[in-house]
Amino acid sequence: MNRLAAAARGDIPADLVIHNANVANVYTGQYELSDVAVCSGVIAGIGKDYTGRVNFDAEGRAMIPGMIDGHAHIESTMMSPPEFARLTAARGTSTVMADPHEISNALGMSGLQYMFTASQGLPVDVFFGAPSCVPASPFETPYEELDMNAIASMFRKGYTQHLGEMMNFPAVIAGDAEVWGKILAAGNVPLTGHAPGVSGKALNAYISSGVNSDHECTTLEEAREKLSRGMYIMIREGASFPDLKTILPMVKANPLYAARCMVVSDDLTARYILERGHMDEKMRIMIREGVDPFIALRMVTLSPAEYFRLYDRGGIVPGKIADFSLLEGRVIDEGFKVKEVWKNGLQVANDGDVFYRYEHEELAPVTKVRVKNIPTSEQLKVKAEGRRINVIGVTEGSVITKTLQLEAKTQNGIVIPDTERDTAKIVVLERHNDTGRFAVGFVQGLGIKRGAVGSSVAHDAHNFVVAGADDESILTALKGLAGLGGGLAVTEGNNMRASFALPIGGLMSYLKGEEIAAELARMETAAEGLGVSIAHPFMVLSFLCLSVIPELRITDQGYVDITKNPPLIPLFAD
Amino acid sequence: MNRLAAAARGDIPADLVIHNANVANVYTGQYELSDVAVCSGVIAGIGKDYTGRVNFDAEGRAMIPGMIDGHAHIESTMMSPPEFARLTAARGTSTVMADPHEISNALGMSGLQYMFTASQGLPVDVFFGAPSCVPASPFETPYEELDMNAIASMFRKGYTQHLGEMMNFPAVIAGDAEVWGKILAAGNVPLTGHAPGVSGKALNAYISSGVNSDHECTTLEEAREKLSRGMYIMIREGASFPDLKTILPMVKANPLYAARCMVVSDDLTARYILERGHMDEKMRIMIREGVDPFIALRMVTLSPAEYFRLYDRGGIVPGKIADFSLLEGRVIDEGFKVKEVWKNGLQVANDGDVFYRYEHEELAPVTKVRVKNIPTSEQLKVKAEGRRINVIGVTEGSVITKTLQLEAKTQNGIVIPDTERDTAKIVVLERHNDTGRFAVGFVQGLGIKRGAVGSSVAHDAHNFVVAGADDESILTALKGLAGLGGGLAVTEGNNMRASFALPIGGLMSYLKGEEIAAELARMETAAEGLGVSIAHPFMVLSFLCLSVIPELRITDQGYVDITKNPPLIPLFAD
Repeated sequence: MNRLAAAARGDIPADLVIHNANVANVYTGQYELSDVAVCSGVIAGIGKDYTGRVNFDAEGRAMIPGMIDGHAHIESTMMSPPEFARLTAARGTSTVMADPHEISNALGMSGLQYMFTASQGLPVDVFFGAPSCVPASPFETPYEELDMNAIASMFRKGYTQHLGEMMNFPAVIAGDAEVWGKILAAGNVPLTGHAPGVSGKALNAYISSGVNSDHECTTLEEAREKLSRGMYIMIREGASFPDLKTILPMVKANPLYAARCMVVSDDLTARYILERGHMDEKMRIMIREGVDPFIALRMVTLSPAEYFRLYDRGGIVPGKIADFSLLEGRVIDEGFKVKEVWKNGLQVANDGDVFYRYEHEELAPVTKVRVKNIPTSEQLKVKAEGRRINVIGVTEGSVITKTLQLEAKTQNGIVIPDTERDTAKIVVLERHNDTGRFAVGFVQGLGIKRGAVGSSVAHDAHNFVVAGADDESILTALKGLAGLGGGLAVTEGNNMRASFALPIGGLMSYLKGEEIAAELARMETAAEGLGVSIAHPFMVLSFLCLSVIPELRITDQGYVDITKNPPLIPLFAD
Repeated sequence: MNRLAAAARGDIPADLVIHNANVANVYTGQYELSDVAVCSGVIAGIGKDYTGRVNFDAEGRAMIPGMIDGHAHIESTMMSPPEFARLTAARGTSTVMADPHEISNALGMSGLQYMFTASQGLPVDVFFGAPSCVPASPFETPYEELDMNAIASMFRKGYTQHLGEMMNFPAVIAGDAEVWGKILAAGNVPLTGHAPGVSGKALNAYISSGVNSDHECTTLEEAREKLSRGMYIMIREGASFPDLKTILPMVKANPLYAARCMVVSDDLTARYILERGHMDEKMRIMIREGVDPFIALRMVTLSPAEYFRLYDRGGIVPGKIADFSLLEGRVIDEGFKVKEVWKNGLQVANDGDVFYRYEHEELAPVTKVRVKNIPTSEQLKVKAEGRRINVIGVTEGSVITKTLQLEAKTQNGIVIPDTERDTAKIVVLERHNDTGRFAVGFVQGLGIKRGAVGSSVAHDAHNFVVAGADDESILTALKGLAGLGGGLAVTEGNNMRASFALPIGGLMSYLKGEEIAAELARMETAAEGLGVSIAHPFMVLSFLCLSVIPELRITDQGYVDITKNPPLIPLFAD
């Protein structure tokens, strides 16, 4: 017997019927007070008088489709995929399009394989973009380069569903064969983009490659131009980049644009999700900003489903997988608080509790590099070969850095940190292949007065980065990070004052989201104890290695300023 | 060198630049006075100051994307695919989604193969739906049955891009394994539907199969319900079924619905296209009906491209194939007259002239059945085995027929046509496998006073159908059709008064569209000479065999009324 068709007709009891739900229909933009019948994990029917083997009375409360995050880096939360799914499922998220380029820098193909494996059977479906820019530039050293053949391989293996954000927009615009080869190797799939500020003919060239979405619009004008060129606009509302309020007026001006726009999170922290939420928070913001609730809902359900060609989801209609939630209120714009959540027709959450258990150990990544080649105290010393040095200037609240040229402070012919002018020493050590390659530089603006802070989260190659006031503290941090197998460290002299292990590729923890948020807070407090005055010091530190953002950055290969030719910059400025 | 990227950047001359075009942007719903640069058949860029090796000044006239017909039966025009493309390309059509179920009934898999082969290299891209209902019911006899294995095979061979209209909605709703097998054999492709009047739980069951569009909505209420269940609505404006004005209010009420609606032609004649147009006519109707011109344009460009997953077309933006037209006016709603047409960046038409030549002979279908088993005069005689007979009652202007029960007119114990009561004899002869199987019945309402009219166009199995006032004329028609290898015939006694050969499967001609329109008019005039009073008599005749529409029809298996159980109906009513 065809159970699905029979349940749809009402000839047999459905597996589950949600009665009296005020179904938010994303196709019509209207509510429909109705029963929803589920069979074999699929929605069988909407209508009156369905009966189920399990019956649930929604008492007229609003029902919404499972929400979809169109672009997220799970690694940024430091949570493993199962834990990320646990926290977001409770918020009504059913699908996440994840770009695993952090773990792919840290562990190569085996990192992607881990993410894929660890994401099976979760209360949230995770689909992966093939990480298109590993390394982010030739001036970074990941575990291994993932070239066009690697991209093709990811799709052949079934790990990836779309092409992850193509950040190397200069190469795309230039028509570079290797980068276009990666795009073409992905085949006829959604090709997601990342082209901040790209406009006019350069934008034409970028789009002519087939890349057809972008999540980097930070002005209305930019979003309008990209929309007009056929791009799907992913409006980002991340922890550090809240663009939603800026871009929403475009959608409010013409509701039809909602069919080509979606809302994405990009980078979040565990704390952010716990305190503010996931896609539910984006919905609350949009409603507060005066967006029609159904237009808002379309942009976190049907529109991302359409863009990502997920024909089995996006709305509550027959034949789609039974992913939906009930809200506390009778309509969407009544607080938008998600109460009960169903995934594939099974209830997975209630009032924030997720009915879901998992074991971590079996899913640990196979690749574990132990760093043994750590520079000696002598090697870290910088001989004063000039009077002025280039220094990374941190700008609080921005991912942009400046290139400062400062007078070197010296002692016995050695350049030393100048804490009185808030200048620390910064060291990056290659950690993936234990080559021992390291670079030394200086950074101003972190507030470090003594000791050192270190991390194995260091975009995008994620080598060890340590900033400190003295070499001994720096060496203690490097050794500490090596001992942890990756993580965060706060040291003073030869004492490890605080540490937090990130055993999954040096990026993620096996702990619960709540514990991770607490650990991170504890580490930040420890850093404050060294005088660190900047907010989110570990995040700021992690971005000092990202070579594709101007101006001065540092990697294991040395100082890099991507705006200069050649980009590798010497330590001494004279 | 990457020529496309270089042309997009403006660093090399493009192959073609259309200057000063008032580009209708279907993403924004706005005009953009701009240059459009083309390279390698693909749009490289939109913007100012592009230069091309070929340059064309649009002088500020409106430019629109190539238009897409989301559902058409090319066979209905009696034109071959190249000729269909010639007439529609001139109207600004660039893409047609064709359901070849007529030729697939007549010639089986080789008919589909012919359509596919004959559609390569045309100025219109033709994508085929896998004919999902051959035969339309077990009570029709096509050349061969195309079962779920045949469907799978069509996709493997690359002939088909989507599933053709799933007309057997009762079987889908019933959960029939063979029909669901066909749907699943198509795989993850657009699954087009045909479910007239299906509603409520039956509609839920139909949609739960994955079928996700419908072109049979004839009321606003029906369209709204299907849209609300996640179906794409194909609003039909065909020669016999003009539904556009009825359904348009839905789209006018909410522009966002345009993202889930498109306009299709279904069945047109050569004359219709020549006199009224193709998708350009639909545009003029929509504009006249007060639809926002950009909303109208989206429904014949971007929306069908999205539904059919044709990511390479739908708008004038970089990376899409260079399919576009210039109108005579500066804006869409200024008459909407298509002037110059480009396909893949090459101009293919100007002022209705298509720059396109083709040869037919090499493309002829491989399967040619010669009918030799024609009933004798004696075999055609109907012995009066009862007093009352069942008679097909034709309703002018409707595809529906009635079941009439009339007193039999007899002569020497033989039932004969009763022309005084407008009742003709009707014979259907199996023609594909020359089995000699035939059925005899009676039909009221055609107006035949003498002679006979016959056709090899006889939905959906397309056997020979002849209606006449006497057996001799009927036999002359059957023999005539056999001699033609299919076509249309008007006979009187043993004279063939007029004939029109349809050598391509008995459905289509190699003639030009203009000639076909004239031939059909000539045949209709000849039929009028026999007293035939009904409009479009050959079309009416062709639908008398379509067993899936109520009430009484006739096939080579006998009378059929699909609403009865069993559906095969005897000749005598008592």
